[in-house]
Amino acid sequence: MQAYVKTSRGPGGEIRTVPDPKPGAGEVLVRVRASSVCGTDVHIWTWNEWAQSRVKHVPMIFGHELSGEVIELGPGVKGLSVGDHVSAETHIADGTCYQCRTGKMHICQNVEVLGVDRNGVFAEYAVLPEMNAWKNDPSLDPALASIQEPLGNAVHSLLPEDNIEDLGGKNVLVTGCGPVGLLAIAVARILGARRIFATEVNPVRTRLARTMGADHVYNPLEVGADLARTIVSETEGQGVDVSLEMSGHPSSLRLAFEALTSGGRVSLLGLLDKEASLDFDNAMIFKAARVYGIFGRRMFSTWYQVKGLLARPELRTKMAEIITHRVAIGELPRAMELIQSMQAAKVSLEPRW
Amino acid sequence: MQAYVKTSRGPGGEIRTVPDPKPGAGEVLVRVRASSVCGTDVHIWTWNEWAQSRVKHVPMIFGHELSGEVIELGPGVKGLSVGDHVSAETHIADGTCYQCRTGKMHICQNVEVLGVDRNGVFAEYAVLPEMNAWKNDPSLDPALASIQEPLGNAVHSLLPEDNIEDLGGKNVLVTGCGPVGLLAIAVARILGARRIFATEVNPVRTRLARTMGADHVYNPLEVGADLARTIVSETEGQGVDVSLEMSGHPSSLRLAFEALTSGGRVSLLGLLDKEASLDFDNAMIFKAARVYGIFGRRMFSTWYQVKGLLARPELRTKMAEIITHRVAIGELPRAMELIQSMQAAKVSLEPRW
Amino acid sequence: MQAYVKTSRGPGGEIRTVPDPKPGAGEVLVRVRASSVCGTDVHIWTWNEWAQSRVKHVPMIFGHELSGEVIELGPGVKGLSVGDHVSAETHIADGTCYQCRTGKMHICQNVEVLGVDRNGVFAEYAVLPEMNAWKNDPSLDPALASIQEPLGNAVHSLLPEDNIEDLGGKNVLVTGCGPVGLLAIAVARILGARRIFATEVNPVRTRLARTMGADHVYNPLEVGADLARTIVSETEGQGVDVSLEMSGHPSSLRLAFEALTSGGRVSLLGLLDKEASLDFDNAMIFKAARVYGIFGRRMFSTWYQVKGLLARPELRTKMAEIITHRVAIGELPRAMELIQSMQAAKVSLEPRW
Amino acid sequence: MQAYVKTSRGPGGEIRTVPDPKPGAGEVLVRVRASSVCGTDVHIWTWNEWAQSRVKHVPMIFGHELSGEVIELGPGVKGLSVGDHVSAETHIADGTCYQCRTGKMHICQNVEVLGVDRNGVFAEYAVLPEMNAWKNDPSLDPALASIQEPLGNAVHSLLPEDNIEDLGGKNVLVTGCGPVGLLAIAVARILGARRIFATEVNPVRTRLARTMGADHVYNPLEVGADLARTIVSETEGQGVDVSLEMSGHPSSLRLAFEALTSGGRVSLLGLLDKEASLDFDNAMIFKAARVYGIFGRRMFSTWYQVKGLLARPELRTKMAEIITHRVAIGELPRAMELIQSMQAAKVSLEPRW
Repeated sequence: MQAYVKTSRGPGGEIRTVPDPKPGAGEVLVRVRASSVCGTDVHIWTWNEWAQSRVKHVPMIFGHELSGEVIELGPGVKGLSVGDHVSAETHIADGTCYQCRTGKMHICQNVEVLGVDRNGVFAEYAVLPEMNAWKNDPSLDPALASIQEPLGNAVHSLLPEDNIEDLGGKNVLVTGCGPVGLLAIAVARILGARRIFATEVNPVRTRLARTMGADHVYNPLEVGADLARTIVSETEGQGVDVSLEMSGHPSSLRLAFEALTSGGRVSLLGLLDKEASLDFDNAMIFKAARVYGIFGRRMFSTWYQVKGLLARPELRTKMAEIITHRVAIGELPRAMELIQSMQAAKVSLEPRW
Repeated sequence: MQAYVKTSRGPGGEIRTVPDPKPGAGEVLVRVRASSVCGTDVHIWTWNEWAQSRVKHVPMIFGHELSGEVIELGPGVKGLSVGDHVSAETHIADGTCYQCRTGKMHICQNVEVLGVDRNGVFAEYAVLPEMNAWKNDPSLDPALASIQEPLGNAVHSLLPEDNIEDLGGKNVLVTGCGPVGLLAIAVARILGARRIFATEVNPVRTRLARTMGADHVYNPLEVGADLARTIVSETEGQGVDVSLEMSGHPSSLRLAFEALTSGGRVSLLGLLDKEASLDFDNAMIFKAARVYGIFGRRMFSTWYQVKGLLARPELRTKMAEIITHRVAIGELPRAMELIQSMQAAKVSLEPRW
Repeated sequence: MQAYVKTSRGPGGEIRTVPDPKPGAGEVLVRVRASSVCGTDVHIWTWNEWAQSRVKHVPMIFGHELSGEVIELGPGVKGLSVGDHVSAETHIADGTCYQCRTGKMHICQNVEVLGVDRNGVFAEYAVLPEMNAWKNDPSLDPALASIQEPLGNAVHSLLPEDNIEDLGGKNVLVTGCGPVGLLAIAVARILGARRIFATEVNPVRTRLARTMGADHVYNPLEVGADLARTIVSETEGQGVDVSLEMSGHPSSLRLAFEALTSGGRVSLLGLLDKEASLDFDNAMIFKAARVYGIFGRRMFSTWYQVKGLLARPELRTKMAEIITHRVAIGELPRAMELIQSMQAAKVSLEPRW
Repeated sequence: MQAYVKTSRGPGGEIRTVPDPKPGAGEVLVRVRASSVCGTDVHIWTWNEWAQSRVKHVPMIFGHELSGEVIELGPGVKGLSVGDHVSAETHIADGTCYQCRTGKMHICQNVEVLGVDRNGVFAEYAVLPEMNAWKNDPSLDPALASIQEPLGNAVHSLLPEDNIEDLGGKNVLVTGCGPVGLLAIAVARILGARRIFATEVNPVRTRLARTMGADHVYNPLEVGADLARTIVSETEGQGVDVSLEMSGHPSSLRLAFEALTSGGRVSLLGLLDKEASLDFDNAMIFKAARVYGIFGRRMFSTWYQVKGLLARPELRTKMAEIITHRVAIGELPRAMELIQSMQAAKVSLEPRW
């Protein structure tokens, strides 16, 4: 088959013809109908510091967001059939560690990530463990189906636990409007949030943030130090109930706390890549802030919730807007360029080689 | 002032001229701009068994749902000003019992209810403790502002605790589409529910349930014993995640559990008035069901949430639909008749005597 | 091997020589070092109505509580080794249903129970799915290790969800002091409960309830209708914060709610076997009671918690007291008699044939 | 009356004769039977940077932990009587802000602290709002009754919310064994924790930490960088479920996260006084850590829980051990010296002038 392969420990990647994969015990073979590019893929493509230390195996097919059709079942697969349409939960958990056995499989101690630790999905075919193949409504646009995975990140950021206060009538701040931030705004709207504030510097994303339903989108470079005060004053002096930090910028991290009402909660998803400094006394302690580190999506509570939310046409419409570009996978370098230059929000890859 | 007074321990009530009330320490005097009729008021009007045993003081002004304008402050009132627009939290808590001091003021051991235990709001003026006067946006239609209190019941039924799983993408059943049931459907929609099922026998309410956003409204008299099976089959064999029992009928109580997925939750709001029989083993134990008795609204978490949700125009539009009749308070007997004959959902009372 | 077999659809059972079982894929073979008798086993032994309708396969080896040593691994087993000491989680879940995939494996829609739906553990050897074999500290007394499973029921009844208020400084009522009730008292003590009330009619169990740490053990036949009032008055007029209904008697079900403080919670574990009547208005609605149906134990959050609690010597000492009799499995009829005549709390079975 | 007064904006304080205070509306006058010294009092005594910026009013009577007897009621007090024994919740909330009205009075936006914002308790008599006077069992040792307030901090750190997973069978780390840390260890033991790890440099506190029930007390200066690894290895490779950071040291902050299992939770109570640097990616995000800023105690859920826990004699015995010194309030300078030189854990002040 054709596949986009990271061939050497350096920037870029190449289309290669590789042997068709075979599903092992408990696995399924999927024909890729759509994939999409995540920030992680860009890191691997540009071979940044993170990728250099994180990626162990080269050559490796990379990419992890996909939707496809099951075309072959490995031995012992019982819950799926040939012809099923599926997306991938890209975290492959061991199922036996403390976290896996206590309802926290998404933070498995021995997790393997598709397209990072093992061959991924920028290919004609991909192999998935049965457990990681999430069955879709066949009528769902494959491009949307592929970005269910980051949609799951967004839902999980908004609702990090089963038993956490909901968003209905609450004020929300999203710092950073990359694809996950944009999806979070759209979902917060669906979940009944009152006012949604967002920060973003890029004009394409700023426009999309408004389309997703943000009431206010601020450019932190322009508003600067007054931003927290502005948001507090726009919320009757209280600050927001929920902050989602999705940018990975230290100044946004600070803003997420400064704009928060006492007793509010903060979800941290954006990676900072290095140590950051914070006034913990005022940010967290005096405020009795609650903070949730966000990694992956709950397996599979978040996926069921995503499925239920996708039943809402307005969400599907908004997701389609976030896919600013649909390109052939053969043009992956162009997709990378669109993202790096911030012309694109989400780029969907069509299986044309 | 003019007031509708329960003058004797029997059916009905009368308009009387009574002395204008004066606000005591920590109280405010409110000019009533709108009130509305609750089922409780109908019970007091018809003087049913519940009213006979529950109402202690006659003569008494009854009615408890209102919106109005503060026109005088009693000594010590600090948080409100003359001219403020307010609605009433109708449960007056003592503030000192175990429940009040542990965040459960809505189930105060010594609660007094406006229009049941003390003079209510079917009058030109009413006195409220400062704590119970909830400040409204002055631009809010007084008729809508008055029914914030049952809207609070609906929100509290959907979200009985701070830390309870949200409704996003979940399947919901509402048994009984009186005003609170209708409001619950509207709010479930705002909170991102997937599919909403409802039961109702009355055609006016059935139509309104659809307007509120119910996907299916069943007449239990017609569908009968198959109803649970139908709902389970409409939810991919799982049953609903959340049931709200709002009818007070034993058969609906059973349905609320039969249609529930294992591990789902049930809110009980509809009073049954007498003992009811249930197969606890199958309804609750084998299913690991979670059940929440619903009384009042959380003071004042629910009110803040209601305020936030009212910012959504689609909710205000739906609430206006539930107010099927707007009549002068002088025509209270007609309002009672409209409700008892089930021609009306919610009747709003305008201050014309 | 030797095994106790339910040979026909009627009372009793017989020792039979049957072929040694072989572990299949993902299974382990365990040499039984101790087993113990659960109420379920008594039902199957006496072949009561429940057993007649529930048990599908006869002949079948019954019994489900055990501890033993792994002596053979089936293909694909990775997390266990020959020589490991294990106990059994007796609910075999499918791992693929909505419940299993959302952290509620204990209420799997397709659960199979050891010794009820498939061959159990009253035998020299037993086969367990790897996932259901819980690894023990080898120094743990096999008799105690075997009753970890009902200990899990007790812990799960006290703490039905991850995110539920703890027992520290709270008042607790346990109605019914069978083995699970007794274990619940012991655990409530370890978890910092303030006062523990219990009800029981049997003198052996009454004495043990006190040993476990109950402050008051009432005989409901003697105290009667005043019991709720007594408990409320012993808790400064508030009632208990947590009730555990473990008897399956309708009068205890009522007591569990009547003795509850408003906003308190009730766990229902005792099966009532038929419909029961309850005043839902006063029991649940006006009180804003929260009710949790209890089935099994959380897989495997409860087991981890059990493991942690077993580190406390006082709990192990108390568990040893609950094992009132240790008899050879060859004397199973005598064990059944000891339980049915209520001379025993828990009977441990030693592997002597 | 005699009182210890901060007379000028500089180090120290003086005994002065000041007019006896009078209880205003809703207040009670209390004769002080015991008080105790908190770190905050030391800051005010030494007049450190925090005190210089935080304390607004001088001269002011300082001190806030007390127990005493009600000797006079102000107008409108209904729930207390002359002769009642009380302790003080030292945070005086406004009762009207968003936080106060949504069950989070402990983080009131307009909180005033006794002995910081208004006259405190290092005096013969003190005035308390009725709401802040917590009624004690009169048989409770006044010295213990006075330190209920920091005991509340400890309980609140262990259980920051109603609906949070309990401590039963869980591994716990406490970094910093000042009085609150020591009390947290004692309470964790009562709540059924499995293994308790602590860090402390001072030998007096180290010894007390063991007495409280810590299984391991490490000196971070000696163990250094290996400490996290040591704790992880002592917990079967998982790390602790709950970390309490009570030292205010940046290195302990880091340790609290490094020793944490993925998905575990951290309570932050120790003030750091300035910005601190942290690797948020590894500390919080990849680990899906949950973090709770801790300020005060929940009003009054924590107090009820404290009351229930104080019913346990072993807790009272341990608390008595923490009070390493009982001195006359006239010797306050010596008490300050004992604390600053770390010879004392908690110093109780007896009303001898």
